[in-house]
Amino acid sequence: MASPRRVYTHPALREFDLIRTIRRRFGRGDAFVVQSIGDDAAIVAARPHQWDLLTTDLLAEGVHFDLRTATFADVGFRAVAANLSDIAAMGGQPRYLLVVLAVPRDAAGSQIQQLYQGIMAAGRPHGVRLIGGDTSASTGGWFISLTLIGSVPPGRALLRRGARIGDGIYVTGTLGDALAGLSLLKESTGRSRRRSSPASLSSRHRRFLIQRHLRPTARVGIGRWLSTNRLATSAIDLSDGLSGDLGHICKESRVGAEVDTAALPLSSACLAFAAARKIDPSALALTGGEDYELLFTTPAHLKTTLERTAGQRGIPLTRIGTIRPARSGIYAITGEGRRQPISVTSYEHFR
Amino acid sequence: MASPRRVYTHPALREFDLIRTIRRRFGRGDAFVVQSIGDDAAIVAARPHQWDLLTTDLLAEGVHFDLRTATFADVGFRAVAANLSDIAAMGGQPRYLLVVLAVPRDAAGSQIQQLYQGIMAAGRPHGVRLIGGDTSASTGGWFISLTLIGSVPPGRALLRRGARIGDGIYVTGTLGDALAGLSLLKESTGRSRRRSSPASLSSRHRRFLIQRHLRPTARVGIGRWLSTNRLATSAIDLSDGLSGDLGHICKESRVGAEVDTAALPLSSACLAFAAARKIDPSALALTGGEDYELLFTTPAHLKTTLERTAGQRGIPLTRIGTIRPARSGIYAITGEGRRQPISVTSYEHFR
Repeated sequence: MASPRRVYTHPALREFDLIRTIRRRFGRGDAFVVQSIGDDAAIVAARPHQWDLLTTDLLAEGVHFDLRTATFADVGFRAVAANLSDIAAMGGQPRYLLVVLAVPRDAAGSQIQQLYQGIMAAGRPHGVRLIGGDTSASTGGWFISLTLIGSVPPGRALLRRGARIGDGIYVTGTLGDALAGLSLLKESTGRSRRRSSPASLSSRHRRFLIQRHLRPTARVGIGRWLSTNRLATSAIDLSDGLSGDLGHICKESRVGAEVDTAALPLSSACLAFAAARKIDPSALALTGGEDYELLFTTPAHLKTTLERTAGQRGIPLTRIGTIRPARSGIYAITGEGRRQPISVTSYEHFR
Repeated sequence: MASPRRVYTHPALREFDLIRTIRRRFGRGDAFVVQSIGDDAAIVAARPHQWDLLTTDLLAEGVHFDLRTATFADVGFRAVAANLSDIAAMGGQPRYLLVVLAVPRDAAGSQIQQLYQGIMAAGRPHGVRLIGGDTSASTGGWFISLTLIGSVPPGRALLRRGARIGDGIYVTGTLGDALAGLSLLKESTGRSRRRSSPASLSSRHRRFLIQRHLRPTARVGIGRWLSTNRLATSAIDLSDGLSGDLGHICKESRVGAEVDTAALPLSSACLAFAAARKIDPSALALTGGEDYELLFTTPAHLKTTLERTAGQRGIPLTRIGTIRPARSGIYAITGEGRRQPISVTSYEHFR
């Protein structure tokens, strides 16, 4: 599998610290813009009974996807899932989609059609409408840029800031699956340095992990449930990986965090993968990116309500830790009870 | 100058006829979506007192811009102007901008900064707020995708459909300047087949034409004025060129059109350019793209109101023809009174 390193940052962006600079220079006050650049989605309060959520992503061939291991439908599906997940992390309802494509000159119409089929397969279950876009030739590979517009009732958006000391830290689903799936795909193309033995994993587990990478599920329903019932003080979706995304919440909320590694939810497929590769599964869970599960915090007095309702509704939640003061930093308690700082590293794109 | 040919169409897109197919397959009915893919912007009627307008564009290095002749600030400015122009053509007020960049690995932070300076220089005068975006590495050249969100009062959006027989056809400003400017830039890089003699044009005219290409003005105020006062039955912005964009209006409105070539508004710089290059200036005006002027139709009974008010306010309008029945097709009346069919050709991107 890929050694988890720092999230890929373009040299020019590192140097420039783009987002912070833009925010400072151009993000001047506007009564209607509730939340600008820097959260999962921007929030615009342009109408009395609804806030708009806007999120946009760019996927570049060779950076975010590999057409040797993913079909065009997979690429379209995953692109939409990533955007749906941003809206889910704000507690919103996704609504409208704009699709921008840059298409290499040797592309076929059937490839574009498959891409759109994947896009609609991901969007349709959530009622997303494709309302526009633009298509151009590309002098490089494929580029896909999506803009998803959603909505949330005023004041109900879940932000990264808002976590308070003592809040429980929760995640949905299981962690690390997508990174395991990506690693399996990379082994299949010989791009991994690891000498692979795919046979050591059952084909059922293998399929599950690859599917978790190629066809992630955005937790739209759970995000809306948390928002509607005011159950979360902060939320983010797991795109960079638990350690990176928990770092975002802690930074924006100005708090620290304690994570119980023994509590990290792992699928049996991920456990089997880790055993076959002789790696620590909790490292997979901490650093694996693009699971598109939700990470959120809930105050102690809502713990029982949250956990009971989730149990009744079959919502897969796991409490993985507790928000601590900022001075404590972000750390894990290992199975042996040792305290280990978590470096706020995260998943890198695959090249 | 570049010989005006058909608009550049990617082979895969030609084969697939993307927009029509998507519209048919995925654009199913939704009470909130007033106008989906196919006009200048999509319209979403999600709130009682306002319709949202959404438009998105992709600019690819080597396809839509050439960094040997345009600064990064120029590229950013022109990208925003193209989107502002889409909102202007709907009669809307631009509001929020999302910026997506794919950045080559050898790029410098200062280039990104200049790009944003151009973006904000175009957006700020119209009160546009930069609210989010995404940035990625590119394995090819630069890609810039913008999504602009605007608004218009319900029912007041100017569409391509709506032109009626007998309506006057109007344009704002002057036509052909941007294509002349682009041609001058191409001559300067030796990309034109024409043996150039730039000295035959005054430096003032030269600067004017190049500026019209690199820093176009979106006609936001005029679009709003037309919409607010219900002065237009249809409108489009001149991005493909007059013949192509008039073709869009005629197709969507199911009408034909008569254009008086002697009436086409030309700048003195464009006339000087045409004289120096020994080309017909009305051909430049008919086929030149990316002027980002507005083309619209106004009923005969509003002619006096329109022209008088425009005169009082100093709004640069020219009546260039009349809407005719569909069976007449689209044709020009030349200076000599001859009737010539206009082929619905339009500007091609520069490679």
